[in-house]
Amino acid sequence: MKKLVIAYSGGLDTSYCAVSLSKEYDVHAVSVNTGGFTSEEIKNIESNAYKMGVSTYKNIDAVATFYTKVVKYLIFGNVLKNNSYPLSVSAERIIQAIEIIEYAKSIDAEYIAHGSTGAGNDQVRFDMIFQTLAPNIKIITPIRDGKLTRQEEIDYLKAEGIDMPWEKSKYSVNKGLWGTSVGGVETLTSENALPETAYPSQLEKQYPVKVKLTFKKGELVKLNGKKNQPEINIEKLNEIASKYAIGRDIHVGDTIVGTKGRVGFEAAAALITIKAHHLLEKHTLTKWQLQHKEYLSSFYGMHLHEGQYLDPVMRDIEAFLQNSQEMVSGDVVVTLKPYHFSLDGIVSKHDLMSSAFSTYGEENKAWTADDAKGFIKILGNQNKIYQQVNKK
Amino acid sequence: MKKLVIAYSGGLDTSYCAVSLSKEYDVHAVSVNTGGFTSEEIKNIESNAYKMGVSTYKNIDAVATFYTKVVKYLIFGNVLKNNSYPLSVSAERIIQAIEIIEYAKSIDAEYIAHGSTGAGNDQVRFDMIFQTLAPNIKIITPIRDGKLTRQEEIDYLKAEGIDMPWEKSKYSVNKGLWGTSVGGVETLTSENALPETAYPSQLEKQYPVKVKLTFKKGELVKLNGKKNQPEINIEKLNEIASKYAIGRDIHVGDTIVGTKGRVGFEAAAALITIKAHHLLEKHTLTKWQLQHKEYLSSFYGMHLHEGQYLDPVMRDIEAFLQNSQEMVSGDVVVTLKPYHFSLDGIVSKHDLMSSAFSTYGEENKAWTADDAKGFIKILGNQNKIYQQVNKK
Amino acid sequence: MKKLVIAYSGGLDTSYCAVSLSKEYDVHAVSVNTGGFTSEEIKNIESNAYKMGVSTYKNIDAVATFYTKVVKYLIFGNVLKNNSYPLSVSAERIIQAIEIIEYAKSIDAEYIAHGSTGAGNDQVRFDMIFQTLAPNIKIITPIRDGKLTRQEEIDYLKAEGIDMPWEKSKYSVNKGLWGTSVGGVETLTSENALPETAYPSQLEKQYPVKVKLTFKKGELVKLNGKKNQPEINIEKLNEIASKYAIGRDIHVGDTIVGTKGRVGFEAAAALITIKAHHLLEKHTLTKWQLQHKEYLSSFYGMHLHEGQYLDPVMRDIEAFLQNSQEMVSGDVVVTLKPYHFSLDGIVSKHDLMSSAFSTYGEENKAWTADDAKGFIKILGNQNKIYQQVNKK
Amino acid sequence: MKKLVIAYSGGLDTSYCAVSLSKEYDVHAVSVNTGGFTSEEIKNIESNAYKMGVSTYKNIDAVATFYTKVVKYLIFGNVLKNNSYPLSVSAERIIQAIEIIEYAKSIDAEYIAHGSTGAGNDQVRFDMIFQTLAPNIKIITPIRDGKLTRQEEIDYLKAEGIDMPWEKSKYSVNKGLWGTSVGGVETLTSENALPETAYPSQLEKQYPVKVKLTFKKGELVKLNGKKNQPEINIEKLNEIASKYAIGRDIHVGDTIVGTKGRVGFEAAAALITIKAHHLLEKHTLTKWQLQHKEYLSSFYGMHLHEGQYLDPVMRDIEAFLQNSQEMVSGDVVVTLKPYHFSLDGIVSKHDLMSSAFSTYGEENKAWTADDAKGFIKILGNQNKIYQQVNKK
Repeated sequence: MKKLVIAYSGGLDTSYCAVSLSKEYDVHAVSVNTGGFTSEEIKNIESNAYKMGVSTYKNIDAVATFYTKVVKYLIFGNVLKNNSYPLSVSAERIIQAIEIIEYAKSIDAEYIAHGSTGAGNDQVRFDMIFQTLAPNIKIITPIRDGKLTRQEEIDYLKAEGIDMPWEKSKYSVNKGLWGTSVGGVETLTSENALPETAYPSQLEKQYPVKVKLTFKKGELVKLNGKKNQPEINIEKLNEIASKYAIGRDIHVGDTIVGTKGRVGFEAAAALITIKAHHLLEKHTLTKWQLQHKEYLSSFYGMHLHEGQYLDPVMRDIEAFLQNSQEMVSGDVVVTLKPYHFSLDGIVSKHDLMSSAFSTYGEENKAWTADDAKGFIKILGNQNKIYQQVNKK
Repeated sequence: MKKLVIAYSGGLDTSYCAVSLSKEYDVHAVSVNTGGFTSEEIKNIESNAYKMGVSTYKNIDAVATFYTKVVKYLIFGNVLKNNSYPLSVSAERIIQAIEIIEYAKSIDAEYIAHGSTGAGNDQVRFDMIFQTLAPNIKIITPIRDGKLTRQEEIDYLKAEGIDMPWEKSKYSVNKGLWGTSVGGVETLTSENALPETAYPSQLEKQYPVKVKLTFKKGELVKLNGKKNQPEINIEKLNEIASKYAIGRDIHVGDTIVGTKGRVGFEAAAALITIKAHHLLEKHTLTKWQLQHKEYLSSFYGMHLHEGQYLDPVMRDIEAFLQNSQEMVSGDVVVTLKPYHFSLDGIVSKHDLMSSAFSTYGEENKAWTADDAKGFIKILGNQNKIYQQVNKK
Repeated sequence: MKKLVIAYSGGLDTSYCAVSLSKEYDVHAVSVNTGGFTSEEIKNIESNAYKMGVSTYKNIDAVATFYTKVVKYLIFGNVLKNNSYPLSVSAERIIQAIEIIEYAKSIDAEYIAHGSTGAGNDQVRFDMIFQTLAPNIKIITPIRDGKLTRQEEIDYLKAEGIDMPWEKSKYSVNKGLWGTSVGGVETLTSENALPETAYPSQLEKQYPVKVKLTFKKGELVKLNGKKNQPEINIEKLNEIASKYAIGRDIHVGDTIVGTKGRVGFEAAAALITIKAHHLLEKHTLTKWQLQHKEYLSSFYGMHLHEGQYLDPVMRDIEAFLQNSQEMVSGDVVVTLKPYHFSLDGIVSKHDLMSSAFSTYGEENKAWTADDAKGFIKILGNQNKIYQQVNKK
Repeated sequence: MKKLVIAYSGGLDTSYCAVSLSKEYDVHAVSVNTGGFTSEEIKNIESNAYKMGVSTYKNIDAVATFYTKVVKYLIFGNVLKNNSYPLSVSAERIIQAIEIIEYAKSIDAEYIAHGSTGAGNDQVRFDMIFQTLAPNIKIITPIRDGKLTRQEEIDYLKAEGIDMPWEKSKYSVNKGLWGTSVGGVETLTSENALPETAYPSQLEKQYPVKVKLTFKKGELVKLNGKKNQPEINIEKLNEIASKYAIGRDIHVGDTIVGTKGRVGFEAAAALITIKAHHLLEKHTLTKWQLQHKEYLSSFYGMHLHEGQYLDPVMRDIEAFLQNSQEMVSGDVVVTLKPYHFSLDGIVSKHDLMSSAFSTYGEENKAWTADDAKGFIKILGNQNKIYQQVNKK
């Protein structure tokens, strides 16, 4: 039988795929953990996979890879798509696709299957990365091709002797290191907000708490003074902050296939980390570093969202971003409160708001009134000439 | 005596200027209201001005002008400097400078005076706009030139028979249509947040309230269904929302003179209006409209902040922004809560997230699975070729 | 029979389509002249069309439309794709597609056919514009679908009683107002240049001649002092300049389908007009106008090339470009020489290089040595602080 | 006596400075060769320097440094200011300023002098780099401060016993590795071209010759198959090409002080190298690499021109550019002809125009007609929706 790797999540769609494909192929299931699964959940997925008839199951722990290859640059770039969404799911899918196709190559699979429909972004991300990294592995997509309803899938599985409780939850939730997305009901309209209860995290804390984030060259190396891998710090920060129900919003954006989509999310750690990092940059980078980072990062986020992670221009932008972080080191203190947070301030030895040079709006030591007058006179030169030449 | 116009605020610095300049010049005081003053405050400023010995005093009501010439475009562009500050003060100064110099020209003044120091942004904005629009009117800046201390100014005024309570307030506050800035003590450091009490508005409401903003071609034409001038709607929205202590933050940014500065602000209406407008745009504009608006608006904000409003490139960008608002019409509902707000959603007949065409992630009617496969195959073409050509 | 409109050029492919489609449909042939055809050529196409069995033939003169809707903005933006190609063919196709679909709608056609293959750009431009402007008219593409060889097409036509001299010319040439493209043989490789003889225009003049271009708000309103419609001036300029074999090059670019392509072109008038216009702008626009025009125009050219002319962002950019031309009026003198040209200089009352203000490198009247020192001191402020704060 | 370093060129201005400053300071003259000087010329400058009374003279050979620190990135970025000028002089001044201030620091000088006037760009570049790298060394600028006429300087020198032939040449010429600038007479107007005789190089060759440039990761490593340092290859290419009078033009641009300036130049090697390099990139980089390189390089050129080389954003852009050159390797053949050149084509193993994947406009193997239809259908999705939603 021909060897096939399936991206297996344990849900109804990929279960249907696993069972039906096992009739024709030697099916190897794989799931990639980018931060959303507990080890118990993984065990559960594994045991279910075997019930679907797969030959092998493998869970790949890609949390550190996810951080190193993508999340790090999203922080360097302060990337919030359309000024609100940290690209939680978009970013995950990229790494999942890469890990899965590399696994397929490593076991010499001839086929690779995923459970995406033909309507959304994920099919594009999976297909494009699979085709680019392994042009000879054929892609199989039973859900996209078959257009089956949930009931048809459930009936099929039941007929195959698999009778599990497949009740559709009201909201579809995707959890990962960089945030949790929540879609369904209200997000299918343009006008309605998600109810509080739709969010997995609920408000548990009322009293403000201060958290100290320590960055070294743009990376979150310490949380409240305790050193750890950045991805661990992000997880720990999320634990603390999600109790305040921070970082919720609804993202409205353009899909890769040209439609508009709306999805809720909660991403406490992502939001806090990005805002704290950005504040530190405002103190340590020059005006033009900030300006060009903004332009390049906005494109980086859009291109990543659209599955174009393998375009070499992404590596070029990463080189820019990496280089820009040389001085982005220091502490940022954040105050967490119910539903929101505020940034207290920063301490950094690279802080350019050094009172040794001048204090804003106060008397300064670095230049005289005459210097300022000369500066202004020449700074305004071109517009003055323009107005004189073109005056009516 | 030579005719001089002074930009008069009623504070210690401009009072000192008014008194000392009146000895040499025929001084005409002018203040420009861009939304910060009540009529009582203006009467007070007027009566004080005459105590300082000026020949005439004039208050120019520039709220509508301020909206039409600047605020409108800041909304069109969703401009938040460094992703947080609505440019409240920067934007005001531009219009104030223009109004003052036009007044000076209208009364044939030979001199114009302002009370800015040599350390900050305002001197640049005033000088550049004065010089550009009236190259023959000479600029007089006693505070910048004299480097006097507050005490020296107070002593001088007392000696001149003017004994007013000049006690320096802990924070210097600037109020206007587009927000209130708060500077002092903590903002002179990099690490400390402003205390709650430093903000002029205080939390008065605890229970959430919904507000409906209606935009027509990008302008806020109705508030809760009631039609009014956009600048009036902004003022009314601010009244409602400031009771929730919404829109507070500390801006950290680059001054025109190359230093870094930090200033607190509260700008409830500005923040809510921009975020609501942006949401409406996410539903009604195309991907590339959103992308290019972001790029141009970021520059527009920076250039405005730096006093370069008269650069003709600003008119070109405004033409772009104005044109982009053609379809930005509809309602946005916002929920106000203590210290923060959230956007419920929008209703617009120009909404591109039309379920008539496709619903994100759901079965769609506009294309088939094969269409999607063809799309993805060709979309990924260049990177596939790149990887094949350059594979190791 | 069902009504079908065919984009008919008179070549082998569209002749094949016309004949074979006439068996099933009521075929109405249309060709759009964007500057490449003489009236004799059009008559010839018409008589051939009827030989192919079409019901009606119509030639649409779209030269003025082409100028007004596209070429004008390509001049305003100084658009040269990849810094060399004036987008001659790309720009034409857009207008042709729009004219053809509007014609189809006006005669209530249910079908529309074009002769493009499935490998290139034109299919994308035609399909996208057809689908967008008339989603209910079905597109028929026999060449793309059938993958016939030239010989098969010739044999088919012969069997249908149509025996014409279809010999394939060595190079395929496309002529229009904004330039002539030349493809084949060498352009299918990466390394070879086209021979001189491949270019339709040949060197006829040896002695330099000066030409004066007069622009009014960015439009070429006079040639050598003679007033005329801009599109007429472009045609006349091309007649003069093509005798010098000016404006030849090979464009290497990205196709919409992700491959790289190479095509020769000669576009004397386009190159001269753009370079002259750009020179006039360097004298009349501010630094930031030039900078942002460059950024937006580069995108405008790319998006146009990719068939995205109907994206509303294109209208927004056009609004920017139109506004930027307010002062771009004056004369530019160009010297034509064999194979190249040079720009002598400009005369404009909006010239900002006015000696009334300062002469570059010479003593100036507008500021003092001390002004300059103050300017430089403050201009360098941020980098000085950066170096001091971060010195090793 | 206090130690002073003077940037000494041997011209009238710096000779005047050297003589007059030697009365007050212990003067150490230094000149920096960025490619313009023969060893004989340097000897001559040296002997003259001692006649002016300086204590020591030093010539710093900075050709390789100039290439490595600046020219390399100008090639990577295909930088032509305002689409024509390779920034020949602007780029040199930066390196000269850095070398001079480092020399001053190395000999513990307390003062540093240069001969620039207060009207142009060079004063800004020198002052800013001096102040940034050595804030404690005081800058002395006798020409800027004194506003002396040439005759006053000549008279002063004569009185000091120095009687040299200082006749002012009609044109002021600045020669360096990256081009020669030519200013005077016609360039002081907006309308006149420089006469042929104003250019140092004259047409000597009539018959075309082919030159092969070999790039490795963006650097010019071979000329006509002969390996050498890139800066040597540039010099050799210039020798060959300048005999064809190639690369002449007049740059019109914005000075740092807000005026417009005009300067002639000849830069055969710079123009050929950039155009050849760019062609190779068009074959080897992806669409978005080309697009973003263009944006960043344009800013890089402007910021360099304005003396902001030390802004750390320049290092970030260099990191981007360096990374983008990974695949920019291959041969480019250029044909040199009188007054112009043309690019024949390229050979590169990284060429993405590989016929293995598809040939433009020809039948292709990588996708089907149906794939293309699906691609186009979805690519046009958003504009289709936009038109449907917003149709009148």
